[in-house]
Amino acid sequence: MAKINPNYRKLSAGYLFPEIARRVREYTTAHPDVTIYRLGIGNTTEALTPTVLQGLHDRVDALGVRETYTGYGDEQGEADLRAAIAAYYAARGVTLDPGEIFVSDGAKADAANVQNLFAQESVMAIQNPAYPVYVDSNVVAGRTGEYDAESGSYAGLRLLDGTPDNGWFAPPPQRAQDEVDVVYLCSPNNPTGAVATRQQLTEWVAYARQHRAVIIFDAAYAEFIADPELPRSIYEIEGARECAIELTSLSKFSGFTGVRLGWAVVPFALRAEDSEEGELNRMWNRRQSTFFNGASNIAQSGAAAALSEAGQAESRELVAYYMENARIIRSALRELGLDVVGGDNAPYLWVKTPHGPDGQPLGSWEFFDQLLHEAGVVVTPGSGFGPAGEGYVRFSAFGHREDIEAAVRSIRERLKL
Amino acid sequence: MAKINPNYRKLSAGYLFPEIARRVREYTTAHPDVTIYRLGIGNTTEALTPTVLQGLHDRVDALGVRETYTGYGDEQGEADLRAAIAAYYAARGVTLDPGEIFVSDGAKADAANVQNLFAQESVMAIQNPAYPVYVDSNVVAGRTGEYDAESGSYAGLRLLDGTPDNGWFAPPPQRAQDEVDVVYLCSPNNPTGAVATRQQLTEWVAYARQHRAVIIFDAAYAEFIADPELPRSIYEIEGARECAIELTSLSKFSGFTGVRLGWAVVPFALRAEDSEEGELNRMWNRRQSTFFNGASNIAQSGAAAALSEAGQAESRELVAYYMENARIIRSALRELGLDVVGGDNAPYLWVKTPHGPDGQPLGSWEFFDQLLHEAGVVVTPGSGFGPAGEGYVRFSAFGHREDIEAAVRSIRERLKL
Repeated sequence: MAKINPNYRKLSAGYLFPEIARRVREYTTAHPDVTIYRLGIGNTTEALTPTVLQGLHDRVDALGVRETYTGYGDEQGEADLRAAIAAYYAARGVTLDPGEIFVSDGAKADAANVQNLFAQESVMAIQNPAYPVYVDSNVVAGRTGEYDAESGSYAGLRLLDGTPDNGWFAPPPQRAQDEVDVVYLCSPNNPTGAVATRQQLTEWVAYARQHRAVIIFDAAYAEFIADPELPRSIYEIEGARECAIELTSLSKFSGFTGVRLGWAVVPFALRAEDSEEGELNRMWNRRQSTFFNGASNIAQSGAAAALSEAGQAESRELVAYYMENARIIRSALRELGLDVVGGDNAPYLWVKTPHGPDGQPLGSWEFFDQLLHEAGVVVTPGSGFGPAGEGYVRFSAFGHREDIEAAVRSIRERLKL
Repeated sequence: MAKINPNYRKLSAGYLFPEIARRVREYTTAHPDVTIYRLGIGNTTEALTPTVLQGLHDRVDALGVRETYTGYGDEQGEADLRAAIAAYYAARGVTLDPGEIFVSDGAKADAANVQNLFAQESVMAIQNPAYPVYVDSNVVAGRTGEYDAESGSYAGLRLLDGTPDNGWFAPPPQRAQDEVDVVYLCSPNNPTGAVATRQQLTEWVAYARQHRAVIIFDAAYAEFIADPELPRSIYEIEGARECAIELTSLSKFSGFTGVRLGWAVVPFALRAEDSEEGELNRMWNRRQSTFFNGASNIAQSGAAAALSEAGQAESRELVAYYMENARIIRSALRELGLDVVGGDNAPYLWVKTPHGPDGQPLGSWEFFDQLLHEAGVVVTPGSGFGPAGEGYVRFSAFGHREDIEAAVRSIRERLKL
């Protein structure tokens, strides 16, 4: 008699974004004439750029001719793309072997699957707030107990609480009883828009090396970093390749959210307490060869084009476009007296909820509802990213300029602060 | 201190295909002038068809215009593609709701991930021989003990031994102590090319309903079935939607091995012993929403084109091309006195090894080496698909016609039987 994996039942509520969609649908059904401005999901809106389009079309053409048709490729990615990714890192001073790079269909899948490399009893430490996939994948994998609505977390998970004081990056644990085995860090962070400083990452790398912990470093938003002092890859920190896996994506840099292309870096030097030399790299290779059959070859050619000199220049224009959106939102919200961080090195703005009529700060979902009902603006409640996000909402800077401007106008004119 | 998932170390040898590649490389390095004919991996070789190419190009064009650009889509697949898949089933008399269809990047990932729906202690029954992913994914998930070289299997897994007598589809277990919870069936089978009869599937569905087992039905090769009496979907069997998940792919039908597009059907009516109504469907929805971010939108448009009337007609021509290859291989091997099954409703031929000089049948790898060394032909050793495959090799019918003909000529002229 088949029985189900009971861990699915532990998952709290729905996934965050379906719940947002439900509330928006409910509201628009009741108010069909209201214009809705979507600054919730971090979804790209601008067209793919000419160099990428050419790369995609060229590959489709090649697939239409038997002499240039290709079927299954290497699960790890096509050799030219892996070389292009290595060159992309090299231009930033980070030397990687193509054998350390694993092309995937995006950072979300890698972020969810990477936990499978580690022992079931591992103590997983996850930034709070953070992208929900880190937590949810570990719940499904059975590494947690039940959800506790009071604390907003799951038994057995270690949350690393971000606060305004620590710049939304908690320092490594100090006490022996707080020791952790695997640490998820996302910088630039989704949702807070905060970027870990060189000093903060250096402390984490030192901790990981000392305690043989492994850092999962999600750098999906690295290209939004404008400040040259801020690290864009964890491998800019000395010793990181012994203790860190990096996940990256072209989703936000080159508009590949729908095309699907990302990669994981699993260095040969990466070590766990009980691993042999290069074993984690070989394990990820085995996982990808067994559970994955390579990213779409068309997407891979698009990615190679995106990483060409011309492609990168065009992608940087896309980033600049979204960052101007962020500037527009930030300055408007600050003019209204709201407390805003992020949006300078990341496409997300992290906004403290204002005080309600009772003089207390609104909850995340309360401010979400207020923005929706008064201004027709959809944001993402900070509490959806973890308990430390309570009292905040996330504004996404992805959108057409005219929609961003209209949303900002609607907030200025209609939001009752 | 991070520790690794110890289950990876249980995995026997390498994955089958890398080992084949290694032996071929070793041989060609020693004999650089020998022509190699690759009838090993089941990889498509013919160009994508005009209707599919148009669908792919059109979507790339749409992504280049901001008004028609799309970013993240539904993790479950685009609505028009899910509707097209439902219509594809309806034309065969199988009614599915689009909400029961989950578009993926291919059947391999679904086949590897589907075990996650079930409890850790589930007794998994796997066809023997079979595509290695069913076994390997359960090993990595920790459902087995160590590999036993003697039996060629892992402690805790239940192998369903195929034989010439049962047409390579073992019947359901009879004895209570042999009861199984989850059953992997692949029809048309990879590697044997055998197709389960309506009677065989009816027996398995009856077993599953009686014992509340769940059948994972891999129908990736369904379009190669020529005989109208043979079921192409398990849902042609009454009651199957209560007890079966079906996995399918456009890889072999439409040449999407590199483009990447498949789907899983998880019916609302599917039940495990302890599941609520529709719960397995919702669980798969949650898994895909957490661990996956949708198939490439370009591939999805290509798939919608492939499932159009014109697209299906072109895809059937591709299938006919490969099946003519199969006929050529089969008739040549039979003329040489070899014992061949498959190749009539599947693109694979399952060939019994001939007797060696000692009068005993050769082992799978021995015949593999003989074919490579004498004729330059690469096949796949049957033992790589499970212990019941020992004494057989698999010929794949995928290849350019001229290469197939040259391979057959080389076998005729050079193989010493």
